[in-house]
Amino acid sequence: MNDYYSQEGHGPFEIIDVGALDLEDGGRLPRCTLAVATHGRLNPARDNAILVPTWYSGTSKIMEQVYIGPGHALDPERYFIVVVNQIGNGLSLSPSNAPAPLAGPDFPRVRIGDDVRAQHRLLTEHFGIDRLALVVGGSMGAQQTFEWSVRYPEMVERAAPIAGTARNTEHDFQYAESLVEAVVSDPAFRDGHYGSAGAVAEGLARHARLWTVMGWSTDFFRADRHRTLGFESMDDFVSRFMNAYFAPMDPNNLLAMAWKWQRGDVSRHTGGDLAAALGRIRARCFVMPISHDMFFPPADCAVEQALIPGSELRPLSSIDGHLALFGTDPEMIAELDRNLRDLLALPARA
Amino acid sequence: MNDYYSQEGHGPFEIIDVGALDLEDGGRLPRCTLAVATHGRLNPARDNAILVPTWYSGTSKIMEQVYIGPGHALDPERYFIVVVNQIGNGLSLSPSNAPAPLAGPDFPRVRIGDDVRAQHRLLTEHFGIDRLALVVGGSMGAQQTFEWSVRYPEMVERAAPIAGTARNTEHDFQYAESLVEAVVSDPAFRDGHYGSAGAVAEGLARHARLWTVMGWSTDFFRADRHRTLGFESMDDFVSRFMNAYFAPMDPNNLLAMAWKWQRGDVSRHTGGDLAAALGRIRARCFVMPISHDMFFPPADCAVEQALIPGSELRPLSSIDGHLALFGTDPEMIAELDRNLRDLLALPARA
Repeated sequence: MNDYYSQEGHGPFEIIDVGALDLEDGGRLPRCTLAVATHGRLNPARDNAILVPTWYSGTSKIMEQVYIGPGHALDPERYFIVVVNQIGNGLSLSPSNAPAPLAGPDFPRVRIGDDVRAQHRLLTEHFGIDRLALVVGGSMGAQQTFEWSVRYPEMVERAAPIAGTARNTEHDFQYAESLVEAVVSDPAFRDGHYGSAGAVAEGLARHARLWTVMGWSTDFFRADRHRTLGFESMDDFVSRFMNAYFAPMDPNNLLAMAWKWQRGDVSRHTGGDLAAALGRIRARCFVMPISHDMFFPPADCAVEQALIPGSELRPLSSIDGHLALFGTDPEMIAELDRNLRDLLALPARA
Repeated sequence: MNDYYSQEGHGPFEIIDVGALDLEDGGRLPRCTLAVATHGRLNPARDNAILVPTWYSGTSKIMEQVYIGPGHALDPERYFIVVVNQIGNGLSLSPSNAPAPLAGPDFPRVRIGDDVRAQHRLLTEHFGIDRLALVVGGSMGAQQTFEWSVRYPEMVERAAPIAGTARNTEHDFQYAESLVEAVVSDPAFRDGHYGSAGAVAEGLARHARLWTVMGWSTDFFRADRHRTLGFESMDDFVSRFMNAYFAPMDPNNLLAMAWKWQRGDVSRHTGGDLAAALGRIRARCFVMPISHDMFFPPADCAVEQALIPGSELRPLSSIDGHLALFGTDPEMIAELDRNLRDLLALPARA
């Protein structure tokens, strides 16, 4: 176990067992446990539920801190908001907390589709929800949002994928592969049989540096945003922000998520035909890339948005790039909230 | 010695000893040898010389193949073109070819300014040249072009820095640092005391992947440019292009160049005042970033261009990004040639 993934650090969350999950790549999770945080109440009509999946390395906590609350579109006074931690993130079933024989490097390969099926069970069987007013998530949360919209088109009334794609690009696969290599190349990683996350500190630091290079933007650094955020120098920013963020995480967890991220692809439903897959979407959909995102750039998202019936491209503006998802740019979060309010005001399609 | 850095692969070039060079960081090269390739003839007025420095990992060969010839602005019928390999690149004095006690990891730290002083000696003492019709180079060649223009303003009549900066950015430093880490983290690197470059194959492959991610652009891959260039798949492109390119190179050479690249900074002449340094430039200067460059992006270059008296920003358009420098996009090379012809047609400033 790893102390980082605690109720103290990321809770409160509830662990809910959704049963045995046969995985798309052939493995099996005999007891798939999901860490779930909810806000607000399901109304009697059961039509005010919003699902929020999580991104690479993130947990429900940051979604709550940045996106959910009285001042936001995701207002618990009005909606029943279910934040579900993705499998492998350290709170839901993951290499770091799974019992043998699934522990650590023996954790089976999990795809975005597996997460979405597990979440579907959670919502329908545990919460008795059969339609979602909105699915909204960033990065790998966007991958899950697209997967939800294609896999369960009758259930998703609105979808807001932020800074992510429906089918991962070849470029982005390579970026994620560089993250994987940074970790597994550390001799202390020992094919996943390391003693503790701290043993792989060098690999995790190289991984953090790659996030420094690709996670923000050239404009972010030229504008001295890192200093504005309270760091004295680039070294200080890398050390106290980027390294400090990733250092306590479990390497096998990160690798499980990276493998999943690399292979996000809704066209698995349609024999590789992306247009056919996206054509299935019935949700009102706002596709929201971030202007300065270096690995889920607006142009990659625009190509997909054009294939989604009745959708809108609503790019968010921030020189903070992909990691503006962290909430570093309040203006972008306000812009997102305006978009989400617009989207939630639209009637569901007939 | 490393067979890669041969006359057969990169020649013909001449090895010219410019004497002992005291380095800015305190070391000394007792016999600084430069590998030099020339094209055309110096005219009687000695006013038709063009200097072409080289970039990270590159040699004079690719400059000749892509930029120099009868159809190009750099036409040997008209100009005396001197291509000088940078120190550390494997042809000029480098870790891979230096005698003890400078060999391998004991090679001293060399800065852009050291290269430029060595080149100045070469031009003035060996060739008897005291003015340059043009200095033109890409990436680290642009760094040298800026350094020439600031350090020897009376000698440089025209300058064409392509896809590079006068003072390296904090972001770019981090990208180069990720390249360094990819190599030195390989246990086979052994602090530079590896048996052969082949021993560090894994580190060099990780280094090549980072170039895959940052060297081209997201648009390049979305447009299937890698397949257009003759590769069957992304894996094929990474393997037969990116890995194959870097695999034979000497790791200590790459690290010597990376260290130099990270610290390119003309404001060392002016106590850190970039505006004052760039204000010294008397050359007619066209600053030419590449539209889709991910680490020397146009916006970073535009900030510097605005500080250069009488200069022009002439961005080049190519979705191939930084590595369009390799000549993969003929239209961009044609655009560059047009710009260089315009520049060469301008009278030198009084």
